[in-house]
Amino acid sequence: MKSKAVVNYAEEKGSVEIREIDLPQIGDTDVLLEVANVGVCGSDLHQWTSDHSWPVNYPVVLGHEFGGRIAELGSQVSGWKVGDRVVSETAAVIDPNNPMSKIGLYNLDPTRKGFGYGVNGAMTKYVRVPARCLHHVPEHVPFEQACLTEPSCVAYSAVVSNSNVRPGDRVLVIGPGTIGILCAAMAKINGAEVAIVGLEADRGRLKIAEQYGVTGLVGDATEWAKAGDGLGADLIVDAAGHSSTLQIAMNLVRPNGQITKVGWGKQPCNFSLDPIVQKNVRLQGSFSHNWPIWEKVIALMASGTLDVKPIIGGVWEIESWREAFEKMHHGEVVKSVLKPA
Amino acid sequence: MKSKAVVNYAEEKGSVEIREIDLPQIGDTDVLLEVANVGVCGSDLHQWTSDHSWPVNYPVVLGHEFGGRIAELGSQVSGWKVGDRVVSETAAVIDPNNPMSKIGLYNLDPTRKGFGYGVNGAMTKYVRVPARCLHHVPEHVPFEQACLTEPSCVAYSAVVSNSNVRPGDRVLVIGPGTIGILCAAMAKINGAEVAIVGLEADRGRLKIAEQYGVTGLVGDATEWAKAGDGLGADLIVDAAGHSSTLQIAMNLVRPNGQITKVGWGKQPCNFSLDPIVQKNVRLQGSFSHNWPIWEKVIALMASGTLDVKPIIGGVWEIESWREAFEKMHHGEVVKSVLKPA
Amino acid sequence: MKSKAVVNYAEEKGSVEIREIDLPQIGDTDVLLEVANVGVCGSDLHQWTSDHSWPVNYPVVLGHEFGGRIAELGSQVSGWKVGDRVVSETAAVIDPNNPMSKIGLYNLDPTRKGFGYGVNGAMTKYVRVPARCLHHVPEHVPFEQACLTEPSCVAYSAVVSNSNVRPGDRVLVIGPGTIGILCAAMAKINGAEVAIVGLEADRGRLKIAEQYGVTGLVGDATEWAKAGDGLGADLIVDAAGHSSTLQIAMNLVRPNGQITKVGWGKQPCNFSLDPIVQKNVRLQGSFSHNWPIWEKVIALMASGTLDVKPIIGGVWEIESWREAFEKMHHGEVVKSVLKPA
Amino acid sequence: MKSKAVVNYAEEKGSVEIREIDLPQIGDTDVLLEVANVGVCGSDLHQWTSDHSWPVNYPVVLGHEFGGRIAELGSQVSGWKVGDRVVSETAAVIDPNNPMSKIGLYNLDPTRKGFGYGVNGAMTKYVRVPARCLHHVPEHVPFEQACLTEPSCVAYSAVVSNSNVRPGDRVLVIGPGTIGILCAAMAKINGAEVAIVGLEADRGRLKIAEQYGVTGLVGDATEWAKAGDGLGADLIVDAAGHSSTLQIAMNLVRPNGQITKVGWGKQPCNFSLDPIVQKNVRLQGSFSHNWPIWEKVIALMASGTLDVKPIIGGVWEIESWREAFEKMHHGEVVKSVLKPA
Repeated sequence: MKSKAVVNYAEEKGSVEIREIDLPQIGDTDVLLEVANVGVCGSDLHQWTSDHSWPVNYPVVLGHEFGGRIAELGSQVSGWKVGDRVVSETAAVIDPNNPMSKIGLYNLDPTRKGFGYGVNGAMTKYVRVPARCLHHVPEHVPFEQACLTEPSCVAYSAVVSNSNVRPGDRVLVIGPGTIGILCAAMAKINGAEVAIVGLEADRGRLKIAEQYGVTGLVGDATEWAKAGDGLGADLIVDAAGHSSTLQIAMNLVRPNGQITKVGWGKQPCNFSLDPIVQKNVRLQGSFSHNWPIWEKVIALMASGTLDVKPIIGGVWEIESWREAFEKMHHGEVVKSVLKPA
Repeated sequence: MKSKAVVNYAEEKGSVEIREIDLPQIGDTDVLLEVANVGVCGSDLHQWTSDHSWPVNYPVVLGHEFGGRIAELGSQVSGWKVGDRVVSETAAVIDPNNPMSKIGLYNLDPTRKGFGYGVNGAMTKYVRVPARCLHHVPEHVPFEQACLTEPSCVAYSAVVSNSNVRPGDRVLVIGPGTIGILCAAMAKINGAEVAIVGLEADRGRLKIAEQYGVTGLVGDATEWAKAGDGLGADLIVDAAGHSSTLQIAMNLVRPNGQITKVGWGKQPCNFSLDPIVQKNVRLQGSFSHNWPIWEKVIALMASGTLDVKPIIGGVWEIESWREAFEKMHHGEVVKSVLKPA
Repeated sequence: MKSKAVVNYAEEKGSVEIREIDLPQIGDTDVLLEVANVGVCGSDLHQWTSDHSWPVNYPVVLGHEFGGRIAELGSQVSGWKVGDRVVSETAAVIDPNNPMSKIGLYNLDPTRKGFGYGVNGAMTKYVRVPARCLHHVPEHVPFEQACLTEPSCVAYSAVVSNSNVRPGDRVLVIGPGTIGILCAAMAKINGAEVAIVGLEADRGRLKIAEQYGVTGLVGDATEWAKAGDGLGADLIVDAAGHSSTLQIAMNLVRPNGQITKVGWGKQPCNFSLDPIVQKNVRLQGSFSHNWPIWEKVIALMASGTLDVKPIIGGVWEIESWREAFEKMHHGEVVKSVLKPA
Repeated sequence: MKSKAVVNYAEEKGSVEIREIDLPQIGDTDVLLEVANVGVCGSDLHQWTSDHSWPVNYPVVLGHEFGGRIAELGSQVSGWKVGDRVVSETAAVIDPNNPMSKIGLYNLDPTRKGFGYGVNGAMTKYVRVPARCLHHVPEHVPFEQACLTEPSCVAYSAVVSNSNVRPGDRVLVIGPGTIGILCAAMAKINGAEVAIVGLEADRGRLKIAEQYGVTGLVGDATEWAKAGDGLGADLIVDAAGHSSTLQIAMNLVRPNGQITKVGWGKQPCNFSLDPIVQKNVRLQGSFSHNWPIWEKVIALMASGTLDVKPIIGGVWEIESWREAFEKMHHGEVVKSVLKPA
């Protein structure tokens, strides 16, 4: 049995195409997951445009934001049954003996490999998934939304696990992409007053962000950040993909405040970090997520507290992957979702 | 100039009456505050029924939940002006050299004295207030609501400062009085799924609690607490005034979870605390509040995130104090508010 | 092949004897461990005197504080080899899918079973151990000391993981048994000024405690606790096996301080817990330990920072278990250690 | 009455000389402090060599690390008496109404002014000090050592308040100046295994550091940092005065670890901060100290836990300030101490 898959077959820019692939063989502790929906991530786009900074095992099926039903169980899998509605974490291969894995932070195990770059991902009909990666999805949460558990977990990790937001805090998010908007939504759910700042070109995405009860700002966020007692925002979430935004964050954060950096920036910082010392500020990097974060985010979706519908720009069949990728690449939609034929 | 005041004049049960008192003399670092509204607290009722456990400086004007305008400034007061709309903290007298005061926890300075029992409180027209106790109230927050900043701060302290609620957590509050309902509201604002449990007689108050988006429960909360993964609630807030509820809390809290005790109970615990050890649970006492908590709660009221209107059962003139006290004492209203003539 | 073992064969008081047992069969993910030394725990004594409060799978080999060399490997064990010097954690059976296990707190999985009561323990020559329980022990740490990693982890968990000691803090430990003395040592290592308080009968054990640079006190600890600024100790570790010591702890802890309860007490508390509310105190239960704690404690032993020699009262052959148990039961030694023939 | 003082009289390099100054006039809430000893700080040297980055109120008496006896009391000072042995904090002028002051972090009040640059410091016989800055020094701690409370507080703030060291952690300090050595000592007191790394030229200072039980390293610290489980150090304290060391820190810190930056570096970072995101690392700036830190450090000195003698390179009379400054400037001593004639 063959299935169509969105395959990234080489390092050269644009090396993505539809290919027919075999049904994956699963191991004793794996399940075979029948994909219902899979989100397109910025990192899928980066591999497509060859603008990525991580090693890829070519050829590889793209896609790591996915959910579906269990189609088959490995011989040693317990606690799951065929037909279960699930979403999957992203660390497909980990070393269980690594000290990070031993403390539940397998997402920081330096030897890990993820879906969509290290092993075959989910932009196809069937994907092999270790049972330890699975989480139940309640019946009433549609897969089109459930497949966005992953980026929601990135946001939860940044805003909740790696930060310390308290009701009444002022939180400023820089960069209204998927992660930025979800970070803003998460800070709002956490009781903060939230603004999200972008560029002129981001007006459409800021409009979407405002559906989460946060303030959209274009350009300079100083006035918003210094409102209140004038000392700055309690937390700045830097979700923009450029080193320079850190300088804005250092200016607008209050003394003893926090900047959480979830956006990457491979450019050198052409400025000093002395304000971090002078203001006694915490600059916290945030990377991915782990098991308890997935459970909390699914609980938030199940109760309706977190609604990801506003950021979904459309659902495309896998064969129309290019349109889905391009819409997102050009900022016409915040998030594209695919579904297997 | 004389003003009417609700005076608790002796230790005997029922020793409360309206008296005419002189205009207070203020010191160099005080202001004279013209009271707009003052809430009735459970502790005012306890002094009235002589069911209290703290020393009282008889005779004393009752009332420590209050707001109004500044009528006069002490000679060394800076940063305030006559006419400013303010609410006041409750620790009227503190030792600034006490180690607790030195770290901003003057509310735990063992030598402190509060309004309404240690010094004259606000159930009258004018009250003397140290400037360090004041917080600005925005124009659009009416004093009838602003005077409930104090119990809201008790709730913020219990749920936010002394606990560690995260979005998606399950929080169970025991005891639907003013503090319990505000704790439930605060946990909800913090992103939790929240239930509040009471007795049959509490059905009316649970109805009011449900306006905050929380689930009201009568009797046994086990099913709610064990919903989800079956291990229990992440946080139990014990806001009931009886020692026995701790036993319920120990049963329903999850391993490694927290119980925050804001309710008092002078009865001996006729049970063992071994479950706290066995489950590795944190039992956290929570008492009053301090400066940053007041600022956060006012920000929550100003943004409309926290709305105290649902718990206000009515506003009475000071001369009708007895009706206001009795309505609350009998559970007919959650919170009574007074206003000077 | 048969080995002698200290077997607890029934619930009746005194139901412990030497029996010959078969070599354990190991599973795919287990190792066979050849025991070098095994400590006697208070809970072994409690099962012997039938003064315990947990269910026991009779007949069972006692002993859960142990170390030795790997004698055989299960077919799926990786990362270990025959001859490795190891100590073992205590949670012999856990549910890997339990939410507590998923976050690395398998020690709080309610379905877990431990060595020495749930499955056969280590007071014999060979014991079956899941590979996930193992930790490497450096060559220069003798097994007579390494077998005390387990109680040292109980202390680390109580004083470090479940408390928040800072250099210069005042820490008072109540109860100079093995756990109390190790808690005092751990608080000292953490930079605190430490005292440990006991009864007249504890003078010998307090003398041993003083070898860790802590102050031994007999009777009333008030003067020591209130030295300094007079407000009380930052942390009280209640390691005594009686409910009543909590009342002492509540009196001597400073406002906003912490009491960590590692000692059990099945008696009802015949006092109110109001001081916990009034002082805004954290009462934290502490139970067992998990993987990272074991690694830290072994590092402390390997560097010589933690030296358990002072508490070892002697090493007995397994057949002399009764003498080893009795010496400890009567308080003649702090800790007895056994070795297989 | 006139006294000799080390005065920094202008911005030009080298603008420091001995001048005769008048006895300071004190205000109602101040004391007049008779200086016993005053330490020379790197920032005093920077003002001398005009290599500083903060505004200076010329002419100004240098010196902010000092202790002595109270010579006179302002009219409203309570809790102190003439003759008391004291050390003083550094924030000479603060706005008590600033939100940072209100929460006890007056050291981060942006309007604050410090001794030795904002107001006259202590390199003279008498200095005016607000009573709120004072801390008692026990009789048995000599002033030559007590005057180093201030840099010890910088270290405590960096390593204890702004970091989270646990016994058994591996802590690497970069930069063996006064602050770096004291940070290493503090981490050691906190139970960590500690190394401190410097350059060839730092061998003498590393030798002094080793008196605190820490490992001195020259050049590359990779091997030390990766010893143990190979994942890197739990905490890196960057106490070097150059931006480039942050890159070393990012390489050597373990995933989910912390880098605490107490050293300034006005150079741009010519590298990306992506490793902070990738490793989920906390980069924490640490600036100065506040009241509770001073109390803890004095307690550590009083108990002998912290001994600053090893870093004191000599005590000079104020008129020999130049020799004291130069010895330190050239790295011949770690710390120079002055005393008034």
